[in-house]
Amino acid sequence: MQKKPRTKRNKQKPGLAPGTIVYTGQKSSQSLFIEVFNYSSHHITEKELTNIDDAFTYKSESTEEVTWININGLNHTDSIEKMGKHYGIHPLILEDIANISQRPKIDEFENYLAISMKMLSYDDKLGLNSEQISFILGHNYVLSFQEAEGDVFEGLRERLRHGKGRIKSLGSDYLLYALIDSVVDHYYLVIEAIGEKIEDLEDELFNGTAKNQVTNQIQDLKREILRIRRAVFPLRDIINRIEKSEHKLINPKTLPFFQDVYDHTIQVNENTEIYREMVWGLMDMYMTSISNKMNEVMKVLTIMSSIFIPLTFIAGIYGMNFDNMPELHHKNGYPILLVVMVIMFIFMLFYFKRKKWL
Amino acid sequence: MQKKPRTKRNKQKPGLAPGTIVYTGQKSSQSLFIEVFNYSSHHITEKELTNIDDAFTYKSESTEEVTWININGLNHTDSIEKMGKHYGIHPLILEDIANISQRPKIDEFENYLAISMKMLSYDDKLGLNSEQISFILGHNYVLSFQEAEGDVFEGLRERLRHGKGRIKSLGSDYLLYALIDSVVDHYYLVIEAIGEKIEDLEDELFNGTAKNQVTNQIQDLKREILRIRRAVFPLRDIINRIEKSEHKLINPKTLPFFQDVYDHTIQVNENTEIYREMVWGLMDMYMTSISNKMNEVMKVLTIMSSIFIPLTFIAGIYGMNFDNMPELHHKNGYPILLVVMVIMFIFMLFYFKRKKWL
Amino acid sequence: MQKKPRTKRNKQKPGLAPGTIVYTGQKSSQSLFIEVFNYSSHHITEKELTNIDDAFTYKSESTEEVTWININGLNHTDSIEKMGKHYGIHPLILEDIANISQRPKIDEFENYLAISMKMLSYDDKLGLNSEQISFILGHNYVLSFQEAEGDVFEGLRERLRHGKGRIKSLGSDYLLYALIDSVVDHYYLVIEAIGEKIEDLEDELFNGTAKNQVTNQIQDLKREILRIRRAVFPLRDIINRIEKSEHKLINPKTLPFFQDVYDHTIQVNENTEIYREMVWGLMDMYMTSISNKMNEVMKVLTIMSSIFIPLTFIAGIYGMNFDNMPELHHKNGYPILLVVMVIMFIFMLFYFKRKKWL
Amino acid sequence: MQKKPRTKRNKQKPGLAPGTIVYTGQKSSQSLFIEVFNYSSHHITEKELTNIDDAFTYKSESTEEVTWININGLNHTDSIEKMGKHYGIHPLILEDIANISQRPKIDEFENYLAISMKMLSYDDKLGLNSEQISFILGHNYVLSFQEAEGDVFEGLRERLRHGKGRIKSLGSDYLLYALIDSVVDHYYLVIEAIGEKIEDLEDELFNGTAKNQVTNQIQDLKREILRIRRAVFPLRDIINRIEKSEHKLINPKTLPFFQDVYDHTIQVNENTEIYREMVWGLMDMYMTSISNKMNEVMKVLTIMSSIFIPLTFIAGIYGMNFDNMPELHHKNGYPILLVVMVIMFIFMLFYFKRKKWL
Amino acid sequence: MQKKPRTKRNKQKPGLAPGTIVYTGQKSSQSLFIEVFNYSSHHITEKELTNIDDAFTYKSESTEEVTWININGLNHTDSIEKMGKHYGIHPLILEDIANISQRPKIDEFENYLAISMKMLSYDDKLGLNSEQISFILGHNYVLSFQEAEGDVFEGLRERLRHGKGRIKSLGSDYLLYALIDSVVDHYYLVIEAIGEKIEDLEDELFNGTAKNQVTNQIQDLKREILRIRRAVFPLRDIINRIEKSEHKLINPKTLPFFQDVYDHTIQVNENTEIYREMVWGLMDMYMTSISNKMNEVMKVLTIMSSIFIPLTFIAGIYGMNFDNMPELHHKNGYPILLVVMVIMFIFMLFYFKRKKWL
Repeated sequence: MQKKPRTKRNKQKPGLAPGTIVYTGQKSSQSLFIEVFNYSSHHITEKELTNIDDAFTYKSESTEEVTWININGLNHTDSIEKMGKHYGIHPLILEDIANISQRPKIDEFENYLAISMKMLSYDDKLGLNSEQISFILGHNYVLSFQEAEGDVFEGLRERLRHGKGRIKSLGSDYLLYALIDSVVDHYYLVIEAIGEKIEDLEDELFNGTAKNQVTNQIQDLKREILRIRRAVFPLRDIINRIEKSEHKLINPKTLPFFQDVYDHTIQVNENTEIYREMVWGLMDMYMTSISNKMNEVMKVLTIMSSIFIPLTFIAGIYGMNFDNMPELHHKNGYPILLVVMVIMFIFMLFYFKRKKWL
Repeated sequence: MQKKPRTKRNKQKPGLAPGTIVYTGQKSSQSLFIEVFNYSSHHITEKELTNIDDAFTYKSESTEEVTWININGLNHTDSIEKMGKHYGIHPLILEDIANISQRPKIDEFENYLAISMKMLSYDDKLGLNSEQISFILGHNYVLSFQEAEGDVFEGLRERLRHGKGRIKSLGSDYLLYALIDSVVDHYYLVIEAIGEKIEDLEDELFNGTAKNQVTNQIQDLKREILRIRRAVFPLRDIINRIEKSEHKLINPKTLPFFQDVYDHTIQVNENTEIYREMVWGLMDMYMTSISNKMNEVMKVLTIMSSIFIPLTFIAGIYGMNFDNMPELHHKNGYPILLVVMVIMFIFMLFYFKRKKWL
Repeated sequence: MQKKPRTKRNKQKPGLAPGTIVYTGQKSSQSLFIEVFNYSSHHITEKELTNIDDAFTYKSESTEEVTWININGLNHTDSIEKMGKHYGIHPLILEDIANISQRPKIDEFENYLAISMKMLSYDDKLGLNSEQISFILGHNYVLSFQEAEGDVFEGLRERLRHGKGRIKSLGSDYLLYALIDSVVDHYYLVIEAIGEKIEDLEDELFNGTAKNQVTNQIQDLKREILRIRRAVFPLRDIINRIEKSEHKLINPKTLPFFQDVYDHTIQVNENTEIYREMVWGLMDMYMTSISNKMNEVMKVLTIMSSIFIPLTFIAGIYGMNFDNMPELHHKNGYPILLVVMVIMFIFMLFYFKRKKWL
Repeated sequence: MQKKPRTKRNKQKPGLAPGTIVYTGQKSSQSLFIEVFNYSSHHITEKELTNIDDAFTYKSESTEEVTWININGLNHTDSIEKMGKHYGIHPLILEDIANISQRPKIDEFENYLAISMKMLSYDDKLGLNSEQISFILGHNYVLSFQEAEGDVFEGLRERLRHGKGRIKSLGSDYLLYALIDSVVDHYYLVIEAIGEKIEDLEDELFNGTAKNQVTNQIQDLKREILRIRRAVFPLRDIINRIEKSEHKLINPKTLPFFQDVYDHTIQVNENTEIYREMVWGLMDMYMTSISNKMNEVMKVLTIMSSIFIPLTFIAGIYGMNFDNMPELHHKNGYPILLVVMVIMFIFMLFYFKRKKWL
Repeated sequence: MQKKPRTKRNKQKPGLAPGTIVYTGQKSSQSLFIEVFNYSSHHITEKELTNIDDAFTYKSESTEEVTWININGLNHTDSIEKMGKHYGIHPLILEDIANISQRPKIDEFENYLAISMKMLSYDDKLGLNSEQISFILGHNYVLSFQEAEGDVFEGLRERLRHGKGRIKSLGSDYLLYALIDSVVDHYYLVIEAIGEKIEDLEDELFNGTAKNQVTNQIQDLKREILRIRRAVFPLRDIINRIEKSEHKLINPKTLPFFQDVYDHTIQVNENTEIYREMVWGLMDMYMTSISNKMNEVMKVLTIMSSIFIPLTFIAGIYGMNFDNMPELHHKNGYPILLVVMVIMFIFMLFYFKRKKWL
């Protein structure tokens, strides 16, 4: 019996001053890794940095070029703080970037938008994995902060490198959209994995091959679905606020794209709700499957007892030592009794057959 | 034991650029089939095309004629793209038309309205079938996109052909209404089929003829009801937005008709909720039916044991080999004991009769 | 085992043109019966007609007299259509009047208000009965359309005939209020009947006199409560809209009366919700009553087995045929053993007594 | 087994004209009893009347004095009608005052406010008792109508008599507040009684001392909580409307007091919801306690059977009458067998001990 | 079996005049203890007082200094009243400060804000502990009222003393924020403790080590979660109202901090909801674990009975005393029968093995 590791919980550190940047996750050995994409419609430069100071040069005022700076390693809080100062980001936002238990949210400032959300992935053995990703959308740049390397943006990088799609001729707001869209697209994969797990469990319960640990699996599924819901539900409001904010950083031409990702978020939400209802039904299924098994056990006991207890009684009768038992001395007493017993046996079988217990 | 095929899930292709038209369904061998109805109050032309280019001629500016172009075969994404370009439709809308897992929705543009919804049908063996249908309402045309041939518009076609109803003298907005109305009317049939399945199950559970697979049937029903809800629920907002939008393409005279279909949507929603509650009750019914059966089994066991175990004990007493057991040597010891046993037997029967276990 | 007839479902006829008047009920042999009350503060005329044309004369423009035309027999769709044309009613409204599965609703037009609602009644054997009633409120008339004869307006007719109450000196809006009020007043009777049925079931479950069919009764109760809810819930919005509409046909002096019936509707709704929760609790009660019974059965089995199986074993010991069993040859062996057995028996009884199983 | 009387239900009298004052309660033998408090900041007069006409003199126009007329005995509908006419109260309000099944509500008129609410009390034997109380707030008077004598205003009377608190120097609106506050304060006692009953039941279920009637007690608790909720829930809106109405009869200085009673109402509501959830959990607790008991019963049966059935079989072996059974003739056959049996017995005990069934 | 003390309930004292300050808690022996922090950006004074009059000097008009007066001991109602008079606080607010069952709330006055909320802490043995804390925010002071010594502000005191953070250079509104933030930060610890208790219970249920009292533990957990919800839920509105009020005491620069604590409140709320769903699942888990155990018990009984009852019957056959039983006299009759019995035994074992009952 193997049990998944306990839900990671955020270690809050009550008593610290607000705005203190503390990494609350567990990947504290992650080394800092910074990826920079600098592009306009006719060129693209891609660099990998390990020192935060090298990333400062990309905050230019030219509207031609868009820069995406992707910072991996939230444990390097000093670097995040430096970055924040250079780009003029509010200390509370920096605190939230490093606090991986942050609820998805958006903060609007005059010169930038700060968005935190969750990248979800699903592993059959480890279950649901949730990593925090934060975006800062500025005039011609997008900063993204991840806990560790490994993300869902590979397709986007390819499109940037090979100039596919309209992405390179559009501004930083479209880049933000493309990043959010990549994250939301992966939610479908997670939801699908959950859905398949539910159908597997249903099949197991139906075939009677479910093991005792099924209750734990169901409880884990519930927990995972509730965590997904917690990650996805606030996204609706976040994207809605981007659409409605009329922020100067959001080009009206990008709005239909945000509307599209908004529709996806609603759809993921709905699917989560559906799976939630299905999972609650699983426990009932398990309960009935247990009861059905017990019924089967009881039937075997009842049939065996009902057949042999009366027969044993009859044998007991003729095992008594009364002086005067004429049947005992009848020549065919024994064979006649055996025949009677066989008839009783057949009758009982027939009776249980008719009751559909056999 | 036959199991329905697994819920089809949409294969999202994360990493593709937004606006890329990908058919996400399974009917990839469907050949392109285009149906054109061109009519005004005094004439009607009906054509069947297999080449998308032939459909381009129908986008005229004359307000006299209304054209309905019904395109079957979402797998022909090139044709959809061409069509989209000719009619000036936003790429994201075209993407949604081909993505059959799209949530029902409406998008308003200056020159057209784009609506996606689900055509539902119910087959006793295959269960709920859901096909996506998308409408584009333009100035004097309606485009409809279906995954495959076979739909719910036969009655509407007849009314167009034979000039019944007011439809031919009214504009494209009335045609859109008539199409949506046909889809919603079929929801009633689906809901009715679900309702009958629920009552069948209730009867089976009540009569005790339900098989083990009843839990799966109930879980399937839940799933189907949740899918219907997902198809029907967004329709309320969609039709409400048509009514409230004051879009230039919607003639105020058509509004009472949309109000009518709006009322139908609410009614379908309500019925879905009722059946949802009924289905959740089914599991409880099944649970009690199992427990009732177990009770019956236990009663048989208890009655048999309670009657014969004491009798066997008494027989055992007189099977003992003590030298000094005066009863054994009494002349009528054996018949007296038999009488005592019969009395005990009758007494027990009487006892269980009074307890209403027999 | 008698089962109530299946829920009647509306046969939708997909494919018909909107505005086609089709009677969807089952009382197709009902003959047309028209009742006319024509009154002012100082006189009243009451007539019974069988021909729809005779009812046309009552649409006068004089503000002095109020006319109530009560039409029974929705199967006479021709007459409804004629009536509709004479009084200038929208075809969709006429369609809804004849469609008995119509959800309660209100439609406001410039010259009239159209309201559809449900008359509920409860019969102990047939269960909940729901009949559709539609009202058309015009300048000085109210039309009412019922499926069949027999309604809840007898008290109102008496008040009209004998001039009791303020009704005769007030306009058609007050008549509409009085009609709706009569319908809502009868909802209380239905709710009360449901409530009594629930308490009956609770008593049966408590006394253990409930039969197996209790699950069906509970499921039927759920269904009935959900149907009542469906009939009552939309009424709140309908009456609220009458109050808020400031329609020229509604005299401000009548508003407190509509407010009163609005309060009643809310109260009926609340009671329905309460009974809904109670009914869901019934299934749990039944479940525990089954389990309690099984407990009782098991106790009997356990007590009988635990007492006699050890005793039988002891008897078996002394039924063995070993050559060398000194107890068998002891003079008082047999009576001593009997005493031991009686002691064991009493001990077991005492044990089960202490466990409170006896 | 004693059962509480059935829920009293309101006998609606369909067919009566609106505004007809009908007492719908059961205390029809209550004699009319009128209590009058007439006070200003420097004096107070207290009188008890039995004739309604004597109460008419207190409707003065002087703003100095405040009069509280407390009428007990809703069965005296004539007196209520007279009172209503004298103080110019709408007939529908008078009808609601006498209709004890009236939902709590507020009606605003130009010269007075009419409020109906429920006085709740809890008796350990009779359960929840709910009495209707209605208030009419006029310029310098408050009328209160109760079904019968006995109320929750004793503390308020004391404060009036002995001039404690600021009450005597403030107007009729403060008196209304003080009355409502007294009613709401008593809700806490009721809620507390319910809470204690729930904890008692939890303890009983935990200790296994719960009787069979526990399901009925739980169902009764549910019903009571739902009734409390029905009494308390509308109060929020009522008090909110008093606060928001800016009615000329409500002095802005009294508003903080109404805000305070509003907070109390919300708190009572929340507590009711908490107890509702707790009560729903009770049924589950009961269910598991039944199952636990059954488990215990089954264990006793299984242990007894598993120990003695094999031993009995062995005794049966040596009770057989084969000619050639050498063990029977062995000198120590019998004692050896007894030893073997004791060893088997000990082994089984050990086995069940390890399984933790003993 | 150890039971936690009953939920403390507030003893309401109906009949008291509004504004009467009554301490409703249980710590009536707490001595008055007053702590004063007086600071500006460049200095800090810290004092401990035991007499309320000494605290009056700190209400200065200078905007330079901020004073935090922390009063412990709500049982000293006289001192609270004096304090209230000195600082001009409404009597109803003072009443709420002393009434520890007060729901969290905010009251806005022209010169001060009054906020009541709950400090939660969790002890593994005593369970959830909730203490009321009230804040009065004035122009340059914050008063805090606690039931007893011991709070969650130690970290804040350290920051004040050692000048860490920006706190000393900001006004009283930031101090209020810091106090509320400290309280909310501790909610996470409580939620975490609840979460761990739930996972412990899940593990116990899964491993089968759960004791009978598990139902009580679950019911207690439910109660605790509902109490947390009651404490946390109103906070959202409170902080939202601080943000939206545009009160002159709230500096716009402090708003992002309140937004931050608002986000935390929402997150705590969401986690509470998740744990609530998990707890409701626990009862189902327990139920299935009981049923699984019963299944195991039944299997043992069934296996033992099914094996030995038929064998005992056969032994009974050959224990009969018929004169004419040829098998008995066969030379190898006895060993042959023993072999047959062993074969039957093995066959039954094999049968149950195949059924997976062994």
